[in-house]
This record gives sequence, C-alpha cells and structure tokens, in this order.
Amino acid sequence: MYGEVVHENIKRLLEERDLRKLRDLLIAFRPADIADLINEIPDEDKALVFRILPRELATDTFEYLTFDRQKSILSALGQERVAILLNGMDPDDRTALLEEFPAAAARQLVLMLSKEERAVALSLLGYPENSVGRLMTPDYIAVKEDWTINDVLSHIRKDGKDTDNMHVLYVVDAKGKLIDDLRIRDLLLASPEKKVSELLNHKFLALNVRDDQEKAVEMFKKYDRTALPVIDPNGAMLGILTVDDVLDVAEEEATEDIQKLGAVEALEEPYINTPIFELIRKRARWLVVLFIGEMLTATAMGYFESEIERAVILALFIPLIISSGGNSGSQAATLIIRSLAIGEISVSDWWKVFKRESFSGLILGSILGAFGFLRVTLWAFVGSTYGPHWLEVATVVALSLVGVVVWGVLTGAMLPFILKRLGADPATSSAPFVATLVDVTGLVIYFSIASYFLGGLLL
Amino acid sequence: MYGEVVHENIKRLLEERDLRKLRDLLIAFRPADIADLINEIPDEDKALVFRILPRELATDTFEYLTFDRQKSILSALGQERVAILLNGMDPDDRTALLEEFPAAAARQLVLMLSKEERAVALSLLGYPENSVGRLMTPDYIAVKEDWTINDVLSHIRKDGKDTDNMHVLYVVDAKGKLIDDLRIRDLLLASPEKKVSELLNHKFLALNVRDDQEKAVEMFKKYDRTALPVIDPNGAMLGILTVDDVLDVAEEEATEDIQKLGAVEALEEPYINTPIFELIRKRARWLVVLFIGEMLTATAMGYFESEIERAVILALFIPLIISSGGNSGSQAATLIIRSLAIGEISVSDWWKVFKRESFSGLILGSILGAFGFLRVTLWAFVGSTYGPHWLEVATVVALSLVGVVVWGVLTGAMLPFILKRLGADPATSSAPFVATLVDVTGLVIYFSIASYFLGGLLL
Repeated sequence: MYGEVVHENIKRLLEERDLRKLRDLLIAFRPADIADLINEIPDEDKALVFRILPRELATDTFEYLTFDRQKSILSALGQERVAILLNGMDPDDRTALLEEFPAAAARQLVLMLSKEERAVALSLLGYPENSVGRLMTPDYIAVKEDWTINDVLSHIRKDGKDTDNMHVLYVVDAKGKLIDDLRIRDLLLASPEKKVSELLNHKFLALNVRDDQEKAVEMFKKYDRTALPVIDPNGAMLGILTVDDVLDVAEEEATEDIQKLGAVEALEEPYINTPIFELIRKRARWLVVLFIGEMLTATAMGYFESEIERAVILALFIPLIISSGGNSGSQAATLIIRSLAIGEISVSDWWKVFKRESFSGLILGSILGAFGFLRVTLWAFVGSTYGPHWLEVATVVALSLVGVVVWGVLTGAMLPFILKRLGADPATSSAPFVATLVDVTGLVIYFSIASYFLGGLLL
Repeated sequence: MYGEVVHENIKRLLEERDLRKLRDLLIAFRPADIADLINEIPDEDKALVFRILPRELATDTFEYLTFDRQKSILSALGQERVAILLNGMDPDDRTALLEEFPAAAARQLVLMLSKEERAVALSLLGYPENSVGRLMTPDYIAVKEDWTINDVLSHIRKDGKDTDNMHVLYVVDAKGKLIDDLRIRDLLLASPEKKVSELLNHKFLALNVRDDQEKAVEMFKKYDRTALPVIDPNGAMLGILTVDDVLDVAEEEATEDIQKLGAVEALEEPYINTPIFELIRKRARWLVVLFIGEMLTATAMGYFESEIERAVILALFIPLIISSGGNSGSQAATLIIRSLAIGEISVSDWWKVFKRESFSGLILGSILGAFGFLRVTLWAFVGSTYGPHWLEVATVVALSLVGVVVWGVLTGAMLPFILKRLGADPATSSAPFVATLVDVTGLVIYFSIASYFLGGLLL
C-alpha cells in the first residue's frame, strides 16, 4: 500500500532515533498499516513505536497485532503505557488477548484497568470459551422508547464519543431489557419530532450470550447484518457482536475444518506460532491411529500370502488399486463434509447423496478400470511383461478398480453422514481416514476377484 | 426460529388458499425466515407466496433464495410480477442472478427493467467475472465537501429512502471523483453547523472496480470495514461493496480451497445442485491424473519383482509403508497450504518451514517406526509369522517408515511453496496428489533398505 520507499524511510528514522519526525510520519498512516510496518522492524524497536504514537492511534494499532506480538510489546513497555493500551482497547479484543496469558499474569493486567474497564473485562472473561460472550463488546448506544429522534441525536452527540458502532441503536426499557433495534438509517429518514416508539417493528434478532460462536456466524450469514445484540436469558441487553469479529471466526472455523480434513487436530494458533512439540502431538495422534488401522492391510495380505507367492504379478498392482480407492473416497468425503458444514445438505439428504454417489462411483470406476485394462494390455504386447494370462490379469485389474472405486466413493460419502448422525464432527472422516478404511477392504476386493478369475490358471 | 407450529399453520392456509390470512401472517416475518419457509412448501405454491406478499417484502425475500429457486419462481410468475421483483432487487444480487441465465434469457429480463435500473444492470454485467464490479451496488449516499452537516441530514431525509447502506457516506467532487469517506458516526457527533470538509482526513480506502474479489476479502479482513467504496482507474466513485457479500465470497473461497485439497476441481454451484455429469467430470480429471501417476508404482514394483518372489513377506508391508508416507504428507500439505492461503506464512518462509518439518518428520517417522518394529516383533513371537529373519524384517520396516515419513512430510510441506513460487495455486498439491507422489518414491525407499539389510539372507 505505502510502498517500499516509505518503509525504508521509517526504518532510517528509527535507526537515527529521530522520534519527532517518525511520529509526524506515522500519524498519517492507518492503524492496520502501522501494524504491518511493526511486523517488519526489529523487535527492540517495536515497543518504541508505541511509546511515541498518540494514545488513540497506539491502541488502534495495537489491536491489529497478533497475540504474540501484543504480549512481547506489553512486556517491553512501562506500567503506565501498558495501562493506557489496555484501557484503550476494545473490550472484545482485550478479552481475546487476556485469554492468551496464564491466569496469574491476566489477573495482574486486569488490575491495571480502570474500575469501569475492569468490571467489563471480568464479566467478559466469565463467559465460556467459544461463546458469544467472549466476542461481544459493550460498546453500543442504548436509547429509550419515549425519546424523540432529536433526543436521540443529542444523546449521541453527548455520549457517543467512545462508541464505534453506530449503525444500529438499541431500544431498551427501564430495566435494561432489549425491546427492539433501530437502524440509524431509519432514524435519519424520520422527521426529528417523531418518537422512537413510532419507528419500532419489534422484529429484532438477538444472540444469547452463551450461544456458540458458530451460531453467530450462521446468523450473520443468514440475515446479512453488520451487528447483532447479545442478551442474557432474561432478555437483558449485554452487548453487541460486530461483523468484523464474525469474519475472523468464520476464517478460523474454515481453517479448523481444513486441518481436520487433512487428519491434523485443529491448531489453536497459526501454524508458524505453534510450538513444535504441540505441532507434532497434534499430528502424531491421528497418524498413529491411521497406522494401526493400516496394520490390518498387513494382516489381510497375510491371508493372501500363498496367492502372492504363486502369482507375484498380483502384488505389482496393489498400490495402484488401493490408492485409486483412497483417492476417490477422499474426493467424495471432501465434497460431502463441506456441503454438510455450510448447510447445503443435511443428514436427511443421505439417500439422495447415496444414489448420486453410487452412479458417480460406477462411472469413475469404469473410467479408471478402462485405463487399468489398457495399461496391462499395452505392457503385455510391448514387453510381454505379464505372461500368457495377461487378458485375465487385465480383467482382474479392471474389475477390481470398478469395485474399489465404487466402494471408496460410497465409504467417503456415507461416513460423514454416519458421524453426523452419531453426533460427531463429520470432518473427522478425513481424507486419510477414508483412504485407510478403503485400503483394507480394497485388498479383500482385489484378491477375491483375482481368486475368481485366476483360480486354476495362476492361482 | 418460528417453530413447527407456525409453519404448519402456514401450510394449512396455503392448502385452503386462504390468501388474506396468509398474507397477514407472513408480513410479520423477516425476509430470511420467509425464504426458509418457501424452501419447505410445494413448488407450485412458491410463486403464489410472491403474488400475495407486499412489493418490498417480496423483493427482500426473493434475494434470500438460491438462484435455482429464483429462476423457477420467475418462470412461474406473470410478466408484471417479474418486473416488480427484478426492479426491486439490489443491483448486486440482481447481477448475480442474471449471470445464471443463458445470455438470451438474461437480455429478455434486462428489457423488463426500468430505464434507470437497466443502465445499472448492464454496466454491472460489463465487469469481468470475479471482479469487484460484479459484486458492487450503486446504492450509497454521496455528499459534497461544502455542505454543512445539516445539509447532509436533510439530503438523507429527502433522497435516502431507497438506500440501505448509510454507515458510511462518500464525499465526491463535482466530477464524481471520490475525495474521502465519512462515517455516519463522525457526522452525528459533529455539531450541525460544521462543514463536511472540516470532518475529512483524506485517509480513505477504496477498491478498484476490476480488482479481484479475493483482494476485497483481504481488505475487509485487514481493515475491519463494513463497506468499501469502488472507484474506476481515474478515481471516480462507481459504487460500494458491503461486508455481507464479502462473507459469502470468503465462504466460497474456503469451499474452493477445500475441494481442491480433496483433489476435486472447484464446483461452481453447491454440490447438491451440480449436474451429475459435471460432478463426475470435475472428479474424473484429477482421478485419472493421479491414476496415471500411480501407474508408476506398478512399474517400480516390476523392478523389484524378483525380490518379491524371493521374499513374499516384503509385499505384506507395502500398503502399510506407502500409506504412512501418504498420510504424513497429506498432513503437512494441508497445514502449509492453509497457512499460505490466509497469509500466516509466505514463500520466503520456506527455509524456516523446511527446518521445522524435517524435525517433525523425523519424530513422527520414529514414532511410526517404533510401532512398526513392535508389530513385526509381536507377530514373530506369537505366531512366528515372519520366519527366522524377523529381526531383520522388523528393522527394514522400521527404517523404511522413518525414511518414508520424513520424505512424505518434506514433499507435502515443500510442494505448496514450489507451486506458489511458479505462480500456480498451492492448493493444487492436494492430499491425494502428495500421497501419489510419495507412494512411488516410498516403494523405492522400502526396497532399497530391504536390499541392504536382507541381501544374502532373504534376497
């Protein structure tokens, strides 16, 4: 955005410790862009930037940094500066940061807050992890039913200075119960003498403070809102959730789903920040489970040892056949898991999917079967690699491919439904998980077909 | 939301064709909820609901339906109703719908628009697919620099009735060039006599009309906005992009990435609406490519045919070993592809990742190797399955696992970087793609280690 030149300029000013010029240059920047810059400069200079930035710009910039950066900057700043940053942060961003500290350190930080902010921070930290309560901010404007539009406007002018979120106002009664929401649009279009009560339609939508954050994402997607009020079970207004937080949650969820699909347990932090042993642990668990499952292939192959001994040629096609089953199963699982995750299909669609996938599997299997048949035939003619019974071998390979692909596709497509029906996360049926399941059964299919067609010839 | 009872009630009124009561009941609903209801009722009743709904509620509801539903409803309604719906739709949603029709039908529909709306529709359809232009709406409020806040407020009251988006106003000069944006918040906080020019900071952000939609998603995520202006290369204001559209685009992108990771070409429509033969085509292409790659395993195995003949026992562990490489490679590829996609890491981080993954691969390989060693040893003692040379076999299996897993992890982790460096989409290195690559090399690793340890004994 701002080009290399400006960045170079800033780095030079930093080196020369020309703080006055640096400050003058920085205040023309947007917070998100200063955050980008901070990511580039040496660690020892990061805190320095926060010492010279004006208070508001400092907190706005701070909120755009990753938790790791925020933590290291807080530890490099004096107590006074830390207090300024923490008190100035949006309550929802602050909650997220405090969650990252060990309990004792978080308590220390909470003590540095003003009395008001401390109450807010403690109450937000009291809600369950991944609940709407942890994401909400008490930064909204509440108005009363019997006010006129003019009253509302002067209220905003008087008390709204610290409020970022003014797209929607919230009408509450004397006890703090949410009565309705009022879009600023409707307020501005109405004549100034009208009463708030005349503008209400009592059709408001709200989230419960203990709702799961996933539910919030769904609500925002369904109703296309930029903010939603958060209430307690008695209907009292507690705060609002804004769409920017929801975009982040949606991205995190997609990341988790993708990681699960790749048979990795969801990481809590970005890949590059995850401690190496945690990273290994999150992968080892699934890898070992899959390995133990895959051990069954050695057992299955043990049963067919004498067949392999008599016709080593059979062994040559094992990887080709089982991986085709695994690949087609991975495709089907991926499609179905994602469709389930974003609500395109539901568990009740399983039969429809079963029919579609049976047909798809048959066609896909036939295509691969044809290729397999061709492969064996060609090699038989060119190099007479596969001996006098090449036609039977080609038939066995082709038919096994059809069988294994149909089986792979149906396993991949149905497993997510079964998991969801059992209350588990469909994404658990990761591509590698499906592939492993299909490997074992694929071997049985292959050797059964081989016994039938090659019995008396090679076997 | 509204419970089964209400839905049942509505279905009964529909059956009895009690349209007056039905209308009275429906107008209390939110558009998104009426859309849910329409998804549940018989096809022949769907258009009926649109005949009885008040004009504005009808268009709002219509916008929440899928394209397929929208198309079938339009075809069931008379020309007049179609015109009402199309003219009332938000321009961005309308563009998306018109894109779904064949060119001739889209032209027919455009002709039914009012002169004004027709000009809007045609200009939006003129921008490239997946560009910001296709998503934008001309539904925003423009103000002039020399107006007072009071002027702005009365302008809004007079001309803002059709405008949904009032969170941010846009200051343009006489030629329509964007000068700055102005948050409604700052407007409301200022005293009414102030001039617009006094509130500007000229720090506005804008998207170019031909920017890719992915860029828009990044901008919204980075700067936490609810709307962004769209300008042409000369800086003239063309429209705005709102965050609700961006949430949809972000979801579509995640879906595409997930599908590619599963080795399916990205679907253009939801799985369940994709015609079956398109679905098969999108899967067959990759499946055939992978199959052809996997054919190399048969070739590789051909080289080791005499080894297998002499020691059939080696064949038994082939699926176990190559799938372990595939699984660990899939994990690594998934982690790295997602991290690259959301910008947690960039190509320049490859060396850091290489070091992390070498270490992770070594540990993960050692874990699986230990399990493999144990498996062979146990079976050797319990069933003396693996003959007198079980210790050598166990060593070969264990060391092959270490080698194959390290190789799988490094392939999975580095391939996305290589693809990105070459300008390709890193997600092309799907889990099945990595698994296939690793299968072939895994066999070579296995048989090389076997030759070394078992030469003179079994081989």
